[in-house]
Amino acid sequence: LASMQSSSRACPCSCPSFKLREVASMYFTLVAVFLVILVVALQGSAPRGNDFPYKVPLDPQGLLELSWNVSYPERAVHFQLLVRELRAGILFGMSDRGEFENADLAVLWSDGHSSYFGDAWSDAQGQLHMDSQQDYQLLGARKAPEGLYLLFRRAFSTCDPKDYLIEDGTVHLIYGILEKPVHSLQAINISAIHRGLQRVQLLKPNISIPELPSDVETMEITAPDVVIPSQETTYWCYMAELPEGFFKHHIIKYEAVITAGNEALVHHMEVFQCAAEFDSFPHYNGPCDSKMKPERLNSCRHVLAAWAMGAQAFYYPEEAGLAFGGPGSSRYLRLEVHYHNPLVLQGRRDSSGIRLYYTASLRPYDAGIMELGLVYTPVMAIPPGEDSFLLTGYCTDKCTQLALPAAGIRIFASQLHTHLAGRKVVTVLARAGREQQVVNADGHYSPHFQEIRMLKEVVAVFPGDELITTCTYNTEDRSRATVGGFGIMEEMCVNYLHYYPLTQLELCKSAMDPGYLHRYFNLINRFNDEEVCMCPRVSIPHQFYSVPWNSFSRDVLKSLYGFAPISVHCNKSSAVRFPGEWEKQPLPTLTQRLREPTPRCPPAPRPQPAAPIPLD
Amino acid sequence: LASMQSSSRACPCSCPSFKLREVASMYFTLVAVFLVILVVALQGSAPRGNDFPYKVPLDPQGLLELSWNVSYPERAVHFQLLVRELRAGILFGMSDRGEFENADLAVLWSDGHSSYFGDAWSDAQGQLHMDSQQDYQLLGARKAPEGLYLLFRRAFSTCDPKDYLIEDGTVHLIYGILEKPVHSLQAINISAIHRGLQRVQLLKPNISIPELPSDVETMEITAPDVVIPSQETTYWCYMAELPEGFFKHHIIKYEAVITAGNEALVHHMEVFQCAAEFDSFPHYNGPCDSKMKPERLNSCRHVLAAWAMGAQAFYYPEEAGLAFGGPGSSRYLRLEVHYHNPLVLQGRRDSSGIRLYYTASLRPYDAGIMELGLVYTPVMAIPPGEDSFLLTGYCTDKCTQLALPAAGIRIFASQLHTHLAGRKVVTVLARAGREQQVVNADGHYSPHFQEIRMLKEVVAVFPGDELITTCTYNTEDRSRATVGGFGIMEEMCVNYLHYYPLTQLELCKSAMDPGYLHRYFNLINRFNDEEVCMCPRVSIPHQFYSVPWNSFSRDVLKSLYGFAPISVHCNKSSAVRFPGEWEKQPLPTLTQRLREPTPRCPPAPRPQPAAPIPLD
Repeated sequence: LASMQSSSRACPCSCPSFKLREVASMYFTLVAVFLVILVVALQGSAPRGNDFPYKVPLDPQGLLELSWNVSYPERAVHFQLLVRELRAGILFGMSDRGEFENADLAVLWSDGHSSYFGDAWSDAQGQLHMDSQQDYQLLGARKAPEGLYLLFRRAFSTCDPKDYLIEDGTVHLIYGILEKPVHSLQAINISAIHRGLQRVQLLKPNISIPELPSDVETMEITAPDVVIPSQETTYWCYMAELPEGFFKHHIIKYEAVITAGNEALVHHMEVFQCAAEFDSFPHYNGPCDSKMKPERLNSCRHVLAAWAMGAQAFYYPEEAGLAFGGPGSSRYLRLEVHYHNPLVLQGRRDSSGIRLYYTASLRPYDAGIMELGLVYTPVMAIPPGEDSFLLTGYCTDKCTQLALPAAGIRIFASQLHTHLAGRKVVTVLARAGREQQVVNADGHYSPHFQEIRMLKEVVAVFPGDELITTCTYNTEDRSRATVGGFGIMEEMCVNYLHYYPLTQLELCKSAMDPGYLHRYFNLINRFNDEEVCMCPRVSIPHQFYSVPWNSFSRDVLKSLYGFAPISVHCNKSSAVRFPGEWEKQPLPTLTQRLREPTPRCPPAPRPQPAAPIPLD
Repeated sequence: LASMQSSSRACPCSCPSFKLREVASMYFTLVAVFLVILVVALQGSAPRGNDFPYKVPLDPQGLLELSWNVSYPERAVHFQLLVRELRAGILFGMSDRGEFENADLAVLWSDGHSSYFGDAWSDAQGQLHMDSQQDYQLLGARKAPEGLYLLFRRAFSTCDPKDYLIEDGTVHLIYGILEKPVHSLQAINISAIHRGLQRVQLLKPNISIPELPSDVETMEITAPDVVIPSQETTYWCYMAELPEGFFKHHIIKYEAVITAGNEALVHHMEVFQCAAEFDSFPHYNGPCDSKMKPERLNSCRHVLAAWAMGAQAFYYPEEAGLAFGGPGSSRYLRLEVHYHNPLVLQGRRDSSGIRLYYTASLRPYDAGIMELGLVYTPVMAIPPGEDSFLLTGYCTDKCTQLALPAAGIRIFASQLHTHLAGRKVVTVLARAGREQQVVNADGHYSPHFQEIRMLKEVVAVFPGDELITTCTYNTEDRSRATVGGFGIMEEMCVNYLHYYPLTQLELCKSAMDPGYLHRYFNLINRFNDEEVCMCPRVSIPHQFYSVPWNSFSRDVLKSLYGFAPISVHCNKSSAVRFPGEWEKQPLPTLTQRLREPTPRCPPAPRPQPAAPIPLD
């Protein structure tokens, strides 16, 4: 009886117990059979490109090339890794932010005689261990003239606590190249090998690229051979002009044109259309913050295209295109290029910009871009030394009530944006105080990989809905406060929504009421017996730099951001607010949160069926 | 191959799969056999008393009587429930604080023909459901002249999320009596049945009661037929005297003597010994806060015995006793009785007190009682409407360094104490900024069940150690702040430690520096544009009552309690501090916390063995 019970506890199907050795032997027999079948199946037939639609080189030399596909029904990714010059082995894996400690790895290694494949993990010291559960499932290995192809499969969620959970958004892939045979996995010194990281969106949405019509034309809006200033941050402004008499077209695709060699300098670019109320705009080619920049250029704020580092070509959905040209549309465009030049290189020339694909055959809907998140103001700041500090921007019910059509809008793409301290970004749709769905989320967001991402499913937003955007920042390496602003060492929290049909609402953001920040400084002043003077005549950033940061001043700021009323920017394209009272608005309150998705794991074994016991 | 893989994923032991019906049928056959064996084994043999050393009536009439034992090796409790007048069934179970919603229940019910036993749970509406996992394991049922005996077993931790986790400290047992047969478990209307709760310490420590020596004598220190004042809270003081020439004895046991009928009025009692430096003390019999109370009585603070509602007799460990009598020991004792009279009953007379068991055969060590936690001061307050607000009192390294002997002290018992808002109490021992062990914890603490509890294992505390006591309060039903103080509607956070050998340190507590509280009121004043005046001339409680409570004022107070320096009370028996600087002391910082114990659950099935795959 007892042995019967214990065997039924170890295995949910109440079966006679096999000894581990028998099971292992059965298993290896199966794997061997399986490998033989696979190798036979692959003989003479190169893997078809269609099977693995996504491809990225892992290392700068292209020795490792990863292709993959995503099966949402199976909740698994199939990988094909091409190793061009295999030496003693390779490591491939994933980790939270690309680090080699606490990473989840597939390892191929040779001891000089045989080769082995295994699912491993690295501990906090970078030491490798075999996983107790093998979740990188080897499906095949094939030698070809160009190198070794490894095929393997990985479920999104494995329920092994040592494994990485593959989620939507950015995934930090890591790789390492073994130069010499090792006698065991444990003998690999992960800090001594050639290694690196590559960021990808692994879980690409299951959307087909719309075909371009036959009458598609292209136009390039590029900087005219600019000398990139030798300073860390530059926003470069350049005015371009559409041909006279250019009638209404739909932009249906665009992509970046980057001057070769400047890939690491061009941080992000946008093409803005100017306000139609002015007949003409002065030409300008220079820094956006220059005193020489004509005032009127501030009326060029209607976004036509936005690209950021890492983004691929952008396609509009078949039923929508971005309108430009024709009556009521300015002929003037402003290209803004954000150069990030941390090494302060001198004399680099650049002609980067954006190539627009457009058509005269108008699609049913005009599309638009709407900016959510935080206003660029130093009022919103992050204390130094924080590993995870949250700031939230609100697009309130009052604004959507006023600005959205009764039939609502459809969001089809989203681009998240922060500066260097950003670690996570999420926008949630709320209705009547209840969170409804995530619009876009990236739990492994990197400011170095800001793609415009198509949403898995189109999100409908109606008048009265709220869009709440929260960014998580890490300032552990900073010694003074990080304030909101345009500089790369300042911060932003933005989600650019791509949607249709077009509305007048171009910007729906918020920031804490500045009066409450004044109270905060006063309060910290008083609390510290005015030893520290945060005089109101000093700029907000300098007042923040003077705060003596400790758990109290940090907690009070955090609490204030979750309590104080907000100033809402509910703006039309021309930087003009919609009519209404937008100052000292109450913070939206949420009565119901979305539940964290819990990974589906195999159920724990159940000792007994759930039936009452009849008594004699 | 594919089917082989999927079966190996569902079941870790790669076995032929049984159908559920076969498994269930096997199971019921087994259970039937098991029950027959049990009933046979129990025939004619009454359960032995020793098997279930702990006993408590569940209901006031004693219809249900629970006996139990604890097996620490098995991590399980064995219950014997005697049902004296069984009608249609009974419910027995556990829940967080004695509520019938979200409770974990064993149910015995009859449909008029047969009886059934099952492990069930109640949802947030009190509706009953069978557990998917049956963890109240029925071991036997036996009819006897006095009623039906049900024997069942329950593991401390079952890993069923619907089950209650049996932990150290208070457990709220609940019971219900079914008067009429029901056709199913789901048909039981939990709100309509006769039901109640009983608090017990289910996991009694595995300690034997020391035998009393043959020369043991007793002495009763009781109030002299006091008329309990018709007010909610009274601390009654009565002076008693030891016989002249009474030499040194050891108290080795004491227990409460409660006047019959006053069980609900006597909240707690203490016997204090007076300071030896005064030759005589005036007689007094009256309220402790009376202006008529002689000043000198404030020098009677050395605790000899402490009892609170729900406590049983207290035994000292074999190697220690509490010294009293002899030279250097005052002949004068002060009995303090805390009467809690919420119904403001008039004219109730009381002669309650404490019976001391003492011996002239001195044991190796003198024992002592030390008070940890928060100073009784309104500086420490809880905002209204909080479901879980924490306050922490510190016994600092500086105090233990000064006051404890090099060989340390041994704590053998502990009594936790709060007033009505208390929900949890825990004391943790820290050394060099690292939490070492829990001294005593009650996650289901009730102010209505304040026992002195023997510790499972004696805790050694050395000079330089820190003792950190945290209380969790619930003020959801209150509309104004709850301040620290003596009144029943004010709060305390206390852990009375029982230890040996005796030291001079009788009280090691703390409270936030009052200057920081002043800053807090100032700050809230300023923040609210001085609409609310919390003038410093008003008492601290009244300043707290004037705070406009919201998430900001709450968070700032919480943050301040975790940040501001403390005033430390490191006191000798005579309410005199040890010499040293005790004001504006830094808060102890912890670099390492104890990990929450995670319940041991059966491991999830593993799809594949952890061995590398050799490649061809």
